Formats: sequence, structure tokens, C-alpha cells
Amino acid sequence: MVEPAAEALLRRMFDAAVAAAMPARAVPAHLPQPATGRTVVIGAGKASAAMAAAVEAHWPGDFEGLVVTRYDHAVPCERIEIVEAAHPVPDAAGEQAARRILEMVRGLGPDDLVLALISGGGSSLLALPAGGLTLDDKQAVSKALLRSGASIDEMNCVRKHLSAIKGGRLAAAAHPARLVALMISDVPGDDPAVIASGPTVGDPTTRQDALGIIAKYAIDLPPHVRAHLESDACESIKPDDPSLGKVENVLIATPQGSLEAAAAVAREAGVTPVILGDSLEGESRDVAKVMAGIAKQVVRHGQPAPRPCVLLSGGETTVTVKGDGTGGRNVEFLLALAVALQGEPGVSALAADTDGVDGAAEVAGAWITDATLARAEASGIDAKASLARNDGHGFFAALGQQLVTGPTLTNVNDFRAVLIR
Amino acid sequence: MVEPAAEALLRRMFDAAVAAAMPARAVPAHLPQPATGRTVVIGAGKASAAMAAAVEAHWPGDFEGLVVTRYDHAVPCERIEIVEAAHPVPDAAGEQAARRILEMVRGLGPDDLVLALISGGGSSLLALPAGGLTLDDKQAVSKALLRSGASIDEMNCVRKHLSAIKGGRLAAAAHPARLVALMISDVPGDDPAVIASGPTVGDPTTRQDALGIIAKYAIDLPPHVRAHLESDACESIKPDDPSLGKVENVLIATPQGSLEAAAAVAREAGVTPVILGDSLEGESRDVAKVMAGIAKQVVRHGQPAPRPCVLLSGGETTVTVKGDGTGGRNVEFLLALAVALQGEPGVSALAADTDGVDGAAEVAGAWITDATLARAEASGIDAKASLARNDGHGFFAALGQQLVTGPTLTNVNDFRAVLIR
Repeated sequence: MVEPAAEALLRRMFDAAVAAAMPARAVPAHLPQPATGRTVVIGAGKASAAMAAAVEAHWPGDFEGLVVTRYDHAVPCERIEIVEAAHPVPDAAGEQAARRILEMVRGLGPDDLVLALISGGGSSLLALPAGGLTLDDKQAVSKALLRSGASIDEMNCVRKHLSAIKGGRLAAAAHPARLVALMISDVPGDDPAVIASGPTVGDPTTRQDALGIIAKYAIDLPPHVRAHLESDACESIKPDDPSLGKVENVLIATPQGSLEAAAAVAREAGVTPVILGDSLEGESRDVAKVMAGIAKQVVRHGQPAPRPCVLLSGGETTVTVKGDGTGGRNVEFLLALAVALQGEPGVSALAADTDGVDGAAEVAGAWITDATLARAEASGIDAKASLARNDGHGFFAALGQQLVTGPTLTNVNDFRAVLIR
Repeated sequence: MVEPAAEALLRRMFDAAVAAAMPARAVPAHLPQPATGRTVVIGAGKASAAMAAAVEAHWPGDFEGLVVTRYDHAVPCERIEIVEAAHPVPDAAGEQAARRILEMVRGLGPDDLVLALISGGGSSLLALPAGGLTLDDKQAVSKALLRSGASIDEMNCVRKHLSAIKGGRLAAAAHPARLVALMISDVPGDDPAVIASGPTVGDPTTRQDALGIIAKYAIDLPPHVRAHLESDACESIKPDDPSLGKVENVLIATPQGSLEAAAAVAREAGVTPVILGDSLEGESRDVAKVMAGIAKQVVRHGQPAPRPCVLLSGGETTVTVKGDGTGGRNVEFLLALAVALQGEPGVSALAADTDGVDGAAEVAGAWITDATLARAEASGIDAKASLARNDGHGFFAALGQQLVTGPTLTNVNDFRAVLIR
């Protein structure tokens, strides 16, 4: 039986991937030199409270601060105030926190330092509509764009022109203080302008672009929203704006960094890592079919690498829910992978969300071995039927093959490892 | 502009892939030693007429023969009779040819040789129901199994027990003559028992297995079909049956062989080939998203190989048709790939069916470059809308980027190359 050892190696890789993205490890290594003036710590995102705690543990001087995180994502801090707010739909708590954060950074001097702690989820946690607009106005436009098939880039362009804090406005408000943003990326391409919608990053798009997108998708805007987009005041801060001259955006953890950490564990175990992508997308069950095909190629032809090897990938797949089961992207992927592999000898896999929560249950993910399908059958569980019901969590719970970590308080998206020995 | 050169290199890779599978090249290299007695050439499949022509061109001694191929797939032969029949739904022409082929190989002696030319499509072209059954009986059972969600292995098990020629029966009929089957594979795993449903390959499954599958899916059989499956006479020929003692099944062309031929072209051009799989499956547009993700990984992180490299894959994707366009697996893949890549600089691709016909049009496939989306936009063509309509052929016809070869008279499934320079 290879089962225990394969599972253990897969788990070590996942743990290394999460560890590489943990604020306690990633924040201290990237802290800037202290300022001669005041230091203000702000932030938003699912990891921001954990990042704040890491700052408190390592920052040598005096500071004050306020960060906003998701409900149930707070951790105890002594000097930085932690506010919890709603995600993914913003609420008044987040709006109030955003207003207070803007106030805190205004009026700082050139010797002062703003340390911004940015992570995924920050966009909705730090929602502050431009003057005269409401959260409902922004939400209505976002929904209309989503329904119309607008791309994420197009949505962000419009949103940055309806916000009082996105599109570089937070950084501009901190001018002339120095601003260092420490960022944990959960987005494809790791573009700082996209992580939490880039409150500290200049925005090259214009209100004319935003109006063009509104016209392209024939979005019906309320008169006061249209009037706002047609006023110069709505323009976002451009990348070459002098007020952004003292801004540094630093990626302190990325999906790729976590995959590399897992790859190092594989190498130490004598297993060749093959990193296929840090931001793979597609319907979970079809991504699984492709991974199964690549795993079989390793088995039959020793390509793209001879065994033992492990296929590593990150990014966010999607699940088109048709059944009534309890599932998530990662367990759906794994269940489909098990069905596609049909117990291919020597192939095992683990898939989990690095934030510790895969979809509908507080379970990070699960793992399979070449014996999983047979074990399910012996227990009277039909893997294909479970997949048809989108019941990944139910399937792996019944087999005792769930991976449970609790919320990790960081997020570099999904982690998938397919081990071929 | 890299466009012309990228397209030319992709085309050279595709041509090499097809050439490696062409009967004129693959057959002569695998012809056995002539027999001292009679030589009988038989065969079935989309490539069988072209294979017969290759035998005629290279066989040193006397012979006679009969092969069955798909309508419009005949090529002129002088001594081997070519019969055309229906595919994928069998017709009387195929049934009659199958009966004649069985007759031709019966009564041969130990010094005689049967040369069987087997390729994809042979299963329906060589359909011969067992005594007392009709083509309609077999078809009805197949359809009922397909509707019930039976796997391809389960379908084949039942079909081999309803046939007078599959499941090793053709080879058993040729006993005691020597039988050499030359096979072109279009199936995942290249299992000779699966190619054309294995008329020359022993079948380990039993009629009890077949009855079990009928029971599992609660298929309602007509009484005479059930009576057949319950009689010993329906049992297929087992792999250790003495009548198969002088049978050799030889793979002369495979999807992997064609990918390796393309890889050699890439290497000569200084491009690293990465063969991801010879039998990838999944919804075309989702396979495309995964390929786009891997291509972006090459661009951003030099993994799984540094650029310049080419991602090669074979196998058969699927298209869930929702629109009213004219499409096929390969052009759907390419269109979705273009949308996912969003003009990523330096990335181009080609996808085509090695048989020269991709789905609904007599077009092998198409190609894209990093300028394709922009060219489409300039022509007023919306790639996303074309994809939503499943209109791959329409999209690439409008751009003049179709790949047209005509039927190649061979088939090792789809060919996909994504070039990153």
C-alpha cells in the first residue's frame, strides 16, 4: 500500500504552500525601514488582521493603525484596531472603516510612513462610494455589468470611477507620506492594480473608458450615477500622478511562490515537480480531465516528465452547480479526477483552497489515491453519481478523506497536486 | 510581425504529425515476411483503402483481398476489392462486406497468411450481428446503453457478445492461418482490443459480464436478444484461445507517434517540445482555458519549459453544442484559446483533426496568432459571440485562417500545438 506515504507527501506539499503565504512568515521579511515620523498601519482583506498581528510582532517603533477584515477573520491585536465587515457584498461596517482609514492617512507629512496591508477580499471590505453615490448604486452597476458579460477588467474600470478610495485614491490621500503596500496576491498575473482593486495603485483607465463600457453593454444608469461619471471629479489617479511618487507596492506572497515552496518539498523527496500554471481556469471537472490525461501521459510515456513526478497548479476553477450536493471547486476537481483516472495505479492527488475553505463547507479540500474509487465502491458510494450531484464534500466526508485546516487567514487561491509514482 | 513564421512552423508540425500516420509510410515498414501459401488481405476502417493501396505498392508476392471503408474514403486499388459502407451507423453494405470477409478467411491452411488492415471506424464498418439478430437489434441495445450512461468499456463488452465478427471471432475464423493485423490507433491508450472493437483480439469479458451490465442499467431486451446473450454460443473468443495462437496485432501508427514526429520538427527549429498527453479529453473550451493557463505560465515563469517551446497534445475533446454556428472540436478549442489568451504576445496555436475533417465542415482545423483577436475585432467579428454560437468554422473562415487538407485517409485523432516564442 502506497496510500499513507503518498498522502503524507501530498500533505507536506500543501502545508509548505500555505506556510509560504502565511503573514507571520511573509510580512516580517518585507517590512520597510522605519520612518523618522509617524507610522500608520492600514489594510483590508481576508488576511489583513493576521498581517497586522505580524506587524505588531516585528515592528521596532511606535505606530497606530486600523485594518478591516472579513467577519470571523479577526485575530487579537494590541495596538492596531481590527474591524470586521461583510464579503463579498459590502456592508456599512466596511464603508465606515474605509472612511476612517482615508481620514487616518490624510494630513501626514513627508517623514511619515503608511504601511498598507492588502489581500484578497479587500475590494469589497474597503468599499467607499464616491460622493453622492451609495453602496447600492455601486452594487447595481456591478450586477448589471456582470449580467451583460463584461470582463473583469471592464468591471474594475467602471468601479474605480465610482469609488472614493480605489484606483489609487487611498495612496494619493497619504501623499506626501511614504506608502509601502504589502500585498498577498490571489489574482491571475499578480497585478497589484487588480488585488483588492488596487487602492494604492495608479489606474491608467479614464472616465471616458468607463463611459464607453457603459455604452457598449447598454447599461441603464440612474441620472445621478451618470452625472458622476460625466464629471471630472470621478477621474481615478493616473500611474504618473505626482501624488503616487512615494508609493511602493510589494508582493509578499503569490500563488507561484506557494507552488515553488511545494516544488521544493517534492524535490527533497526525490519527486520531479512540474508546475503547469499558477492561475489555471476552467470548469473544475474538465480541468480534472486534462490533469488525468497529463498524468496518464506520465505513466505511459514518461512525459512531460518521468515518474516519480508531481503536477502542480494553482488558480481558481469554476463549478457550474446542477446538483443538490455539498461541494466546492477543489473537491469537485478531485472527484472528477478520481472518475477520470479510474484507479490508475500509482497516481494520487490533493486539492484544497489555501484559505482553508473550499466552497460550501469549512473544509479546505480532500485527497485521493489509486484506491479511492474502489474504497467508495466497497462502501456503496457511486463516485459518478456524487459528481453528478456536485457532492464532493459529501463523497470525501463519507470516505474520511477530507482535508481540514480551519481558516488559514491567508489566501493565494487553490492548490492542486497530482502525484505520479 | 512573427505571424507568417509562426504559422509556417505550426503547419510543418501538423504535416509531420499526419505524415507519420499515413498508410503509405506506416504500412510498408511493418509488412511481415510473405507466406509460402496464399495471402489474403482484409480490413476495415476509414484508412483501410489507403492501407490496401500501400500493401499493393509494396507486397512482393501474390494476394487477393477485400476491405471495407467509409463512403468517399475509397482509393483506386488493382487487386484488393474496396467496398464502401456507412459510418458511424452501420448499413447493409458493411454487413455484407463483413460476411464476405469472414468467408474469405475460413478454410485457410497453416501456410497461409491473413493481413488485416484495421483503423478507426472499423467497428461500425465491420458490423455483423450474431445469428438470429439484426443490425437494428444491435443498434437498439447500443442506444439504450448510451442513454443509460454506460461506459465505453461496458458498451464494448455487450457489443462483442452480440457480434459474429468482433471479440476475436474474425481472427479465430482465420485459424490455422497466420494472421497479422496492422493497426492505426485513434483510441486513448492504443489498446488493440478497442481499435475497431478488436476483431482480431481476444476478449477477456464474458457473456455473464454482458448480462451483468444489462441488469445494472436495467436495459429492456427483446426476448430473442436476451435468449442469445443467455446461450453459450454468444461467448466471445478468450485471449488464451488456441485459435488465436498465430495472431499478431501490430500498431503501425498512433497519436503518440504523430506527436513525437511534430516534436522532432520543433526540436529542429530550436523550439522545446512539451508533450502533455496523447489522449486529452474534456469540453473543448475548458481544455482551451487550461492550455491558455499553461501558455501564460511559460510566458511569466518559464515553466513547465522556457520559451521558445510548444505544448503538444492529442486526443478527442468534446463540444456541448448550444449555438447555431458551424463548428468542430478543434476550431471550438482554438476560438476559446484565443479568447482566453487575449492576444498574449508571442503565443500562436494550431488545432486540427488528423483525418482532415473537424466536425461539421470539410475543414481540418485552423490556426491563431497573437494578432487574431485584433484582426477579428477590426473586421467587426466578436470572438466571444462566435464562441457562444459554437461558430468556430464561421469565425476562422471570415479571417482566412482555416486549415484545409481534404480527407487525409488516416486518423490518429486530434492534433493541438500551442507555440510560445
